[in-house]
Amino acid sequence: MPLSPDQKAEIDAQRAQSHSTLRATAAGMEQHLYTAYPVLDHGFVRVIDYMGDDAAIVQAARVSYGAGTKHVQNDEGLIRYLMRHWHSTPFEMCELKLHVKLPVFVARQWIRHRTANVNEYSARYSILDREFYIPAPDMLAAQSTTNNQGRGAALEGEEAQRVLRILTEDAMRCYDHYEGMISQEGQQGLARELARMNLPANIYTQWYWKVDLHNLLHFLRLRADAHAQYEIRVYAEEICRLVADWVPYAYKAFEDYRMGGANLSAPALECVRRMLKGEVVTQETSGMSKGEWREFEGVMNGPA
Amino acid sequence: MPLSPDQKAEIDAQRAQSHSTLRATAAGMEQHLYTAYPVLDHGFVRVIDYMGDDAAIVQAARVSYGAGTKHVQNDEGLIRYLMRHWHSTPFEMCELKLHVKLPVFVARQWIRHRTANVNEYSARYSILDREFYIPAPDMLAAQSTTNNQGRGAALEGEEAQRVLRILTEDAMRCYDHYEGMISQEGQQGLARELARMNLPANIYTQWYWKVDLHNLLHFLRLRADAHAQYEIRVYAEEICRLVADWVPYAYKAFEDYRMGGANLSAPALECVRRMLKGEVVTQETSGMSKGEWREFEGVMNGPA
Amino acid sequence: MPLSPDQKAEIDAQRAQSHSTLRATAAGMEQHLYTAYPVLDHGFVRVIDYMGDDAAIVQAARVSYGAGTKHVQNDEGLIRYLMRHWHSTPFEMCELKLHVKLPVFVARQWIRHRTANVNEYSARYSILDREFYIPAPDMLAAQSTTNNQGRGAALEGEEAQRVLRILTEDAMRCYDHYEGMISQEGQQGLARELARMNLPANIYTQWYWKVDLHNLLHFLRLRADAHAQYEIRVYAEEICRLVADWVPYAYKAFEDYRMGGANLSAPALECVRRMLKGEVVTQETSGMSKGEWREFEGVMNGPA
Amino acid sequence: MPLSPDQKAEIDAQRAQSHSTLRATAAGMEQHLYTAYPVLDHGFVRVIDYMGDDAAIVQAARVSYGAGTKHVQNDEGLIRYLMRHWHSTPFEMCELKLHVKLPVFVARQWIRHRTANVNEYSARYSILDREFYIPAPDMLAAQSTTNNQGRGAALEGEEAQRVLRILTEDAMRCYDHYEGMISQEGQQGLARELARMNLPANIYTQWYWKVDLHNLLHFLRLRADAHAQYEIRVYAEEICRLVADWVPYAYKAFEDYRMGGANLSAPALECVRRMLKGEVVTQETSGMSKGEWREFEGVMNGPA
Repeated sequence: MPLSPDQKAEIDAQRAQSHSTLRATAAGMEQHLYTAYPVLDHGFVRVIDYMGDDAAIVQAARVSYGAGTKHVQNDEGLIRYLMRHWHSTPFEMCELKLHVKLPVFVARQWIRHRTANVNEYSARYSILDREFYIPAPDMLAAQSTTNNQGRGAALEGEEAQRVLRILTEDAMRCYDHYEGMISQEGQQGLARELARMNLPANIYTQWYWKVDLHNLLHFLRLRADAHAQYEIRVYAEEICRLVADWVPYAYKAFEDYRMGGANLSAPALECVRRMLKGEVVTQETSGMSKGEWREFEGVMNGPA
Repeated sequence: MPLSPDQKAEIDAQRAQSHSTLRATAAGMEQHLYTAYPVLDHGFVRVIDYMGDDAAIVQAARVSYGAGTKHVQNDEGLIRYLMRHWHSTPFEMCELKLHVKLPVFVARQWIRHRTANVNEYSARYSILDREFYIPAPDMLAAQSTTNNQGRGAALEGEEAQRVLRILTEDAMRCYDHYEGMISQEGQQGLARELARMNLPANIYTQWYWKVDLHNLLHFLRLRADAHAQYEIRVYAEEICRLVADWVPYAYKAFEDYRMGGANLSAPALECVRRMLKGEVVTQETSGMSKGEWREFEGVMNGPA
Repeated sequence: MPLSPDQKAEIDAQRAQSHSTLRATAAGMEQHLYTAYPVLDHGFVRVIDYMGDDAAIVQAARVSYGAGTKHVQNDEGLIRYLMRHWHSTPFEMCELKLHVKLPVFVARQWIRHRTANVNEYSARYSILDREFYIPAPDMLAAQSTTNNQGRGAALEGEEAQRVLRILTEDAMRCYDHYEGMISQEGQQGLARELARMNLPANIYTQWYWKVDLHNLLHFLRLRADAHAQYEIRVYAEEICRLVADWVPYAYKAFEDYRMGGANLSAPALECVRRMLKGEVVTQETSGMSKGEWREFEGVMNGPA
Repeated sequence: MPLSPDQKAEIDAQRAQSHSTLRATAAGMEQHLYTAYPVLDHGFVRVIDYMGDDAAIVQAARVSYGAGTKHVQNDEGLIRYLMRHWHSTPFEMCELKLHVKLPVFVARQWIRHRTANVNEYSARYSILDREFYIPAPDMLAAQSTTNNQGRGAALEGEEAQRVLRILTEDAMRCYDHYEGMISQEGQQGLARELARMNLPANIYTQWYWKVDLHNLLHFLRLRADAHAQYEIRVYAEEICRLVADWVPYAYKAFEDYRMGGANLSAPALECVRRMLKGEVVTQETSGMSKGEWREFEGVMNGPA
């Protein structure tokens, strides 16, 4: 992620300006504000603004539950209770605004999370930079042989080299042609909104993305998951680190109840009950399909 | 709005704690933070937190439009352009969190605006206070004789007194019975979630309400409008004053293009064009229905 | 639920008109269309329209996964896979429109589910009917002594009688006064939008409510749950019966993976693993709080 | 739009199966169901399902306004009133499900409308077809010289030929390489989720898109507008034709009050009032900026 000198100077300037405020502040997040954390070869994530902290979650919950909550629990206990019981509205009282630079094919997955605010760089209006995601060689995975939507082992030797050469050359050629088509030297110059159609999906775009904590955690649960595509997962993991510093109680509860937890179906629960009584249960006697049984065994065996 | 000593002390404490932050701050809003501004007889609006300012709107727009916007306009000009052309996403980059105390029948209208986050005081969990909205005598309006959904002149003399007496006595009696039913002295005590059904719709509730600026302005356009019910309009007007101090450029644009503007239909525009050419247009020759023509005349004559 | 003769005639007329369509139809739902199923003492639920069926879920999923899904699974297997893996978008491709008559305090809970379309009867515009929810005597529960948000045993004898008398008398008196205040005989008559504030929260309102299947199932998971307030749960249960006839595969998957399933936290899963290896785990050695351990035991013991 | 024989057969089969239903049907829409209407060179729009009709809008409004609406107006008058006064909820009671095939760069604009349900063809899971949007020669517009976000005249002669050749050759080469990289003949084969990054933004994708009528009309207002990019506008215009047959009253009101109407700002209204009194108003005396005055003149002069 080679930031331009202009960008570096802008970030330094943003970090140099301290203001006085009566609002709640989160010390863990102040240290991250504006800094661009690199992701993939040219991407980044940086926090532009935030609203609220762990205490704001508790504060909102106490409005709902009134005096009844006062004697109950400390802040962390209340946050864990809210997370465990799917009380989503107090978590919506925190908000995060990110500036993200990411390949277009990652942006296309990301935007499917609809409950967020987005301002994306407009290739109708402005000219995209010559920056493309080219995977690191050890991330050039083969198609999985068991799962249509997945990766297998990394490509080896010559095949990997061939793929990298293709991705790089096609990106450069398409961008050369993009530049050539919009050029107004000696010709009219094609409209930007048309010329952009020649750019492949690994070109980088950028956006401001603003989301409340509840919907952010939902995004992270799906995109920081081991089954998510690597190229979006690394963004989610970077954001996880930021959230852990911002709202540490909420993030710990999220790890315990969402990321590290599992949803067991009614038949799966019944199997666990039988197994705890000493019965040997097999897929055939479980009432589950083969696919479900395989997933159940994965949960029971735990992380490798 | 008699704040309790506890509430006053809490607000004072919140206003006394200043923090240092690297985030954007809006001086116009800092002065309002936490303070409870009275609305109706027992209600209030107070700002709990905010994200962004006029500059944050511009910043988000410039991400979208890239270098193309740099030479164009100053901040106010760009904000006015965005508002005029219904570019809603940059305004979504600001966020406001309010604490509102309001009668239940107002809350029922308010909640219809779905794109917001809400934590309401739970009468399932906690006991509601004995606070009811009783209109000021000059706000006791008669049913409009021309409009099913509207008010006419204020009730006069004895009728007004009778209405005030009814509203007050019924509220007190219902609340006495509510207290009596949930009491556990000498009886089991009815569940709170059931007892609350005896409380009339002028009882006060409260909530935290968090919304982005675009959706907030949409709310204000509908609820600060002259056709909105008085009891919600006074909340909207109070919020307008806060927003004007928070994002003055955006608020001015909102006043010019939304609150003070009007949407003219295709037939109405055609009438204006004919009238500007000197033609005398009547309802009969306008192509508009009587209702639409009456509204058109209202717009053309301007505010009284 | 005494339907008026007008309402009965309207429903009969709606059920008598059969049309020819090229759209997907669900035989299980056609039999329910328009019929008002009673809920509580004066409420009902009736289906006004629906879009899609089990096959529409599959159809949408196959658009997403293309040829890759063709060889995979039968329809039911695919629906179960989608539900198990939280693929929500195919379920959003079905839509349901209900007409519901319900007490205001139930409507206030219901409306918190924001991702739905609503048209509610307007008490600003029209006059509410004299219909109030008065609980059946065996549903007059005492406040729970262990849970702020819950019910205990039914009230006994005289206390129950007293509560019923209060609820009934206050409702009738408030409605008498409502009628009196809006009356225009011998007086101006208070505006409807004001007079309604005198009506307690057990008065019935009604609305059209339209929602996609994914969000409907989320609503049902929370509101058909044993912890939901009885007065909204009975509506959810009635809707469950309708959904089971409409999209039987999806509903069965919902029962297995959502209603009958449970989310186990990371610490809870670790306990299960240790217990399956023969270890005796107690709350003290579980790493869980007392509250969480109690809930964990509840899941492990299964439905009573 | 060369439909494959399989697709044609599927559409024929869908149109051949008529069912009996008690639901509301819209004859104008039944005739369009399933048929693929061509858009651009390989794209299409086709209706998969719909819910409701003009009468359903009225029906929902009458639930809200109760007996008060009965004597007022005929259906068309009521629909026009609702549209004129921004009553959006009754229009949300109709729903449309489309199957759309469209270039990726069009899909990227389209998806910004968040209040809709989407199932898109997954290039993670399945292999994309070799189909790219290549503009018709007369649609190869130059960049506007006055508007960063716009088009000027069509490219001429040799430049147009050069652009078409580039777009075609780059598309074919990138697709050849895509196929080559995922091939498992004599090599491992790159994962589909990675190989897709080599495909330019004019490749076609497809999705099911489901939306309520209110949000659909908002989409059409922005995307069927003369300022929208041509490549999305042709989709919007095709959908306009379908909606006009589906809900003719609502569509006519939409044309009059939205598409053909204009929003005049407070200063613009004041200018109109002064002009109607005979005053000659210029930009300098208007209180409007140059940009706003230019737009105001455009509205006053009417469509060319």
